[in-house]
This record gives sequence, structure tokens and C-alpha cells, in this order.
Amino acid sequence: MLTHQISESVDALRSNLIAFIQTLVQTPSLPEQEHAVQTVIADKLRALNLHVDVAPTVFDELRHHPAFNDDGFDANKRVNVVGRWGSGAAGLILNGHVDVVSPGDENLWSLPPWSGALRDGRIYGRGACDMKAGVATGIFAMAALQRLGFAPARSVLMQTVIGEESGGVGTLTTIVKGYTAEACIVLEPTGLELSPVQSGALTFRLTVPGKAAHAALRQFGVNAIEKFAVVLNALSQLEAERHAQFAASPIAQLYPDARYIAPISLGTVKGGEWHSTVAEKVVAEGRLGVFPGERNEAARQALVDAVSRAAAADEWLSQHPPQIEWFEGQFESGATDPQHPFIQTLAAAHEAMLGRQPRITGVPYGADLRLFTNHAHIPTVLYGAGDVSRAHAVDEYIEIEEVVQATKVVALMIANWCNRN
Amino acid sequence: MLTHQISESVDALRSNLIAFIQTLVQTPSLPEQEHAVQTVIADKLRALNLHVDVAPTVFDELRHHPAFNDDGFDANKRVNVVGRWGSGAAGLILNGHVDVVSPGDENLWSLPPWSGALRDGRIYGRGACDMKAGVATGIFAMAALQRLGFAPARSVLMQTVIGEESGGVGTLTTIVKGYTAEACIVLEPTGLELSPVQSGALTFRLTVPGKAAHAALRQFGVNAIEKFAVVLNALSQLEAERHAQFAASPIAQLYPDARYIAPISLGTVKGGEWHSTVAEKVVAEGRLGVFPGERNEAARQALVDAVSRAAAADEWLSQHPPQIEWFEGQFESGATDPQHPFIQTLAAAHEAMLGRQPRITGVPYGADLRLFTNHAHIPTVLYGAGDVSRAHAVDEYIEIEEVVQATKVVALMIANWCNRN
Repeated sequence: MLTHQISESVDALRSNLIAFIQTLVQTPSLPEQEHAVQTVIADKLRALNLHVDVAPTVFDELRHHPAFNDDGFDANKRVNVVGRWGSGAAGLILNGHVDVVSPGDENLWSLPPWSGALRDGRIYGRGACDMKAGVATGIFAMAALQRLGFAPARSVLMQTVIGEESGGVGTLTTIVKGYTAEACIVLEPTGLELSPVQSGALTFRLTVPGKAAHAALRQFGVNAIEKFAVVLNALSQLEAERHAQFAASPIAQLYPDARYIAPISLGTVKGGEWHSTVAEKVVAEGRLGVFPGERNEAARQALVDAVSRAAAADEWLSQHPPQIEWFEGQFESGATDPQHPFIQTLAAAHEAMLGRQPRITGVPYGADLRLFTNHAHIPTVLYGAGDVSRAHAVDEYIEIEEVVQATKVVALMIANWCNRN
Repeated sequence: MLTHQISESVDALRSNLIAFIQTLVQTPSLPEQEHAVQTVIADKLRALNLHVDVAPTVFDELRHHPAFNDDGFDANKRVNVVGRWGSGAAGLILNGHVDVVSPGDENLWSLPPWSGALRDGRIYGRGACDMKAGVATGIFAMAALQRLGFAPARSVLMQTVIGEESGGVGTLTTIVKGYTAEACIVLEPTGLELSPVQSGALTFRLTVPGKAAHAALRQFGVNAIEKFAVVLNALSQLEAERHAQFAASPIAQLYPDARYIAPISLGTVKGGEWHSTVAEKVVAEGRLGVFPGERNEAARQALVDAVSRAAAADEWLSQHPPQIEWFEGQFESGATDPQHPFIQTLAAAHEAMLGRQPRITGVPYGADLRLFTNHAHIPTVLYGAGDVSRAHAVDEYIEIEEVVQATKVVALMIANWCNRN
């Protein structure tokens, strides 16, 4: 299979690829509303003669899995789609999620969020970048190979899953149901970088106690807002210390900014009852990054210890320590060795197809990669078209040319990986 | 009029005094619900042959007064009571408020908040200390003198007002209507200290801007929670600096703690939308103390300047400065010279009656004193039974013995002040 044949075959499908992405974007798929788009995809996979399974996500089948996160959405009614191309042992999973985040205030959008409008070589709309273009990439890579009469020696599993944005119950479903392969590409928007490493994220809630008093007599109270600032400062120091320690790891060099591999960020704060009463309590919620190779429990302990140390040095907090709760997403980090033959094969396909070496990077955000690497032991990489900074943003879009490039590389990768000797 | 005669006359009325305080406490008088207790008081004043005016608070008559604060309660239907004893030019106003603050969660109270229960020499209930005992003090001081056949050469105005807890519209009504006298005792619970000096208080709202980003990419956002901490630190420094400057004033020595004469306290904070989004905005509300002798505008400017300086030193805040709003209570400080003959006469009456010199103090909290000193130019002092730390608290109470002492001192003061040569 020659590289230029694949390239030409994808180019021949370009208008179909565009139309398919538009259809996907025009089929809204907020959480619990993914059925319509999954039906579109399943029909498309069947049209390509894939064997299609529809695999419902059922929380009761996942609840005891250590990576399960109850995302609060429907526990039974969301479905995943797995199409199998070929009959040999599975060589490659191509994974993409169909759930999208809310468009937010639609008035902020230049075009309606579900328009799928084509403008200046881009397709606009919620999910265009994250990651309906990725789903289309996988499907059209197979279609382009089929046009050339290619048959995979090791089969390809095309998975479209729900629940990625809320913690990964869709991909976890495929793992628990036993779908596996030698390797996996999660077709997330990486701007055509190979990202075999991702950080984790743990959501926490801090409750900082104070003691109420009238503001005029504030010395008889303890302002929880001031004590919160003590904890905030401790978290800021902790973030710097953790990154200083991690800087020696070769993995740190994969990240675009080694100071923000596993950020600590507070997202909300709320405290006090009245402007003239010393605040009795402050509650803050935030996100603790987990370094690649670090276990969730170790990251949690680091935060607990940092808050404890800060509290011990404070007269009030030493007697009234802040409470820490871990809630909602508790997402592990994940990593595949960048030297793994799978990663090197993909890098070679990228270079052969596009004429330039890809960057191999780590990403600080969560994705389903961790589930494959940690819980299915499948070497996995994030790879796809699109700028992640457009994901979740107003006027989200995808550059068509980049999707075409991704599709060519993935098609070549299927050929090279699944039919390798 | 001999001191011991007055003392014996008050003692003779002790059980009546107790019963009257109980009746006042058992007549709830939350804002807009003061009519019943005002009727009880007006009847009592008429029984003492005072000439009684009922003076409604009408916001439209107050709105253009510089000290008017719209407290959000009824603009027309609350009434004040002014009883005049004697026919000469007014020598003394005795002022007390009848509005009480909410009892809050009644389940926290050992006895129901409106019980007026008598236990171990105390009367319990919301308003017992703040300040129905004070109202009774003024009334029974007059009653005790009447028993002795005393007639005041300069008349006494006994005022019971609404709205003190919410900014003073009741006392302001009496001032606007022209009630005046040579001097005034506001019968607030000062623990029998003479407090001719009080701090002011200005309510403010800070809005600190940030820039949203996903927490995983927090370096592309600006966390308003962290920027809020910059402002918080500036306010803390400002409080210390202002008190260091004021320490040289002789008035500073009147306060129990010269570090907390005009405290700056934040009461509420709220910011951010989601734990994993960098917070885009934090809003905090608080209270800025005003020093005796300081104008509100100068205090406001000090806070504005401090926030501006902190913002100027911060890369983000210098371009996106915090907003400051002044809202709700804007209460001036107030002061009467402790050397004023009126204060010295009261101190002498206290010493003559109780055998000990009173403490002369400044108080950091608001009261109606400022309205008399600043807007009616009446030398005024806070003086009464009760521990201010019990005011507004669960299980509020008043020590009966202390009310009896206050009543004796106030009676002697009426005699000495109104009938002085």
C-alpha cells in the first residue's frame, strides 16, 4: 500500500468527509442525547460492512470498577457503538467520544452552535473539534482503505462512546465488556501531535472554618475568608513544589510548559452570610492535577499534607483544621512509553504521509487514554486534528485540511500496523 | 434630692421594673412589628403623666437628609414615641430603640426567644439586653423621681424609636421633626461605661475580575480567586496602617483595643462557576470602619486608594482593576468630647450613686449617637446596663441588678442635669 495511494483515496472522499462531519455536528449530542448521533454512526459503519455492536452503558455493570466515576447522567440509557472491520485478532482500536459539552449562552455564538456551517475551510459548531471530526477521521480512514481494496490482517475496532466529558463511562463500558486490541488511538484534537501521556485530575472540596462575630468586634471572631487565604497560599506553594520535583522526570519535557503539568486550581469559593458578620465558613472547590506515573492516592495525600502543614502553623486552623473532601471526577493519569513500537510506528506514518516529524507531547487534561493504559493495558495515544483551545469554546470549529491530514495518517497507520509482519 | 433617696425609690420599684422589662421582651418587635411594644410604652408614659407624641417615620420626609439610609423596611408605617416630662426647655433626651434583631434559629435557644423568663437574677429573651432594659431604665428613672415629688426644671424627652438596628431612621425622624435638647443619653448596653465616642461603618462590595480557562490549562486564564487574595491582603495592610496612624489620637486610648477601632472585615465571598474552570469573577462584601473624627468620604477614599495601589502592582489587576461599590449602610462615626460638662456630670452621678468612677470609652460599633452629635449637634453618650456581647446573641439576657444601678444613675443624672443652676 503506497502512501500516495492512500493520500489520493482520502482526497477523493474529501467532500463526503466534510458532509459527514457536518451531519455529526448538526446532530446534537449533549449527555443523555447521544442516541441520534450514534444511530448515524452505526448506519455509516454498517454501510462500510463493519460488524456493529451497540453496547449500552449500565452503571450497575461498572460500579465496582476502580475507575468508575458516576457522572450523574442516566445510569442505563446511553449507548456506545463498536464496529469491527476484519475478522482477525484486533490490532487497533480507534476511539472517539460523541458526547459534547454545553454550548453555553447561544447568544455568544456567531453562528448557531449546531449549524455545522462551512466557512473558509472550517466547519463550525459545538463538537466540530471535540471530537466529531475525530470520529469522522477514523471512519473515513477505513473508507479510504476500502476504496483501495485493502483488508486488515488484524481487525480494527471503531468505537464511538458516550460520557467522555464527564469521566469516561463509555470507554469504561467497552473495557468491561472485553473489547480489546494491541493498541489504541483516541482521536482527540491534538493538533496532529502524538500524545501518549496525560495528566490526571482529582476534584476536591475544602471547607475552612471560622468563628462568627459582628464585624465591629471582629477580634472576637475568626474570619474564615482570611483563613481560606492561608490555605490558598499553601496550595499555590504545593503546586510549585510538586512541579519542581517532577521537573527531573523525562516526561516533564513532553509538556509544553513544565510548570503546569498537574495544575492546582480553585474554581469556586463561597463563604459568609452577611457583609457585617465575620464569615464563619468558606467552602471552595477545585481541581488537583495528577502527574503521569503518580497514583491518585499519592496526589491526594500530598494535598492533605500541605493543608495540614499550613493549618499546623496557624493558631486557629491548628485547632479547627480545614476539611477536605474528594468528590465527582477522580481521574487517573495515564501514559504509554513514547519509545513503544506502536508510538514509533504512528510517528513514522505521520512523517511518511506529511513529510515532517510529529511532536510527541504530554497533555495536562483528562481523556479516555488513561482507561486504556491503566485498566486494559493497551498502549494508547491521543492523536487527531484540531486545536484543543477551540474545544468547549464559543464558535468551536475544525480546520478541514487538518482533518484530511489526520485521516491520511490514520489510514496509513491502519495499513502499517494491522498488516505488519 | 439625696442620692440615697433616689436609690431607695428605684429599689422600691424593682419588681415593677422587672415586670415591665418582661412585658417589653414578651412583646416581639422585629422591624415593621414595633407597634405593639410602642403602644405598651406610650401607655406607660401617659400613666406617668408625660405628654406623648407618636411620630411616624416617613421616608419621603427623610430622603434628602445626608444621614438617611433606606433600610428596606416599611417607608411609612413605623412609629416612634416621644414623651415629654416637664414644661421647661428640654434639658435631656433619653433615647432607646425598640426594634430588635431576629432571634435566628429558635432551636438554638435554651428558652423561647420571647419568653422574658426570669432566672437567677436575669431576664432572658431577644431584646432584653439590646435594648428593652435600656428603655425601661429611662422610664423607671423618671418614675422613681416622681415618687419623690421631683419635678424637672428642664424637661426630659423620653424617645423610643424604630430602625436603629438597620441604620437609624427612627432617631433621624425625631431630629428632622425638631425634637432637641441640651444633651442626650442613648441607653444602649455599655455595661455602665460612658461611651461618648463611636466608630462609623461603611458597607462595600468588591468585584475582582479574572479570566476563565479550563483548570487543566489554567495558565491561559487568570484566577479571580487568587487575585481576590491580593486585594484581601491589601485590605489587611490598610487596616493595620490606618490604626497605626490613629494610635496617636487621644481618642484611641478610649477604645478597649486600639487595633480594632475601625476594623475592616469581609463578610461574604462568592466566585467562580465550576470546580474545574478558572474563576472568572469573585464578589466580596464587607464593612469598613470609620474612625471618630474621620469623614465617610475620607474612609472610602482610603480603601479605594489601597485597592488601587495593590492593583497597580499586579500585572492583571492593573489592566483589570477591581470594582468597588458602596451600598446599604453608610454610617458616620460620632463623638462628644469626654471633657464636656454633660459627660463629666454623668460620670459624677455614676460615681456618687455607685461609689466608683465609670470607665469612659469609645465603641467600635454603630448606634444612633452619631445622628445626635453630627446632625442635631447634641452632646450625646451611650450609657446603659448590659453586656454588648449578649446583644444579637442566642440566649440574650440582662442582669437585673445592673439595670437597677443604671436606673439609679440616670435618675440622679436627670435631677442633677435638668435642675442644675
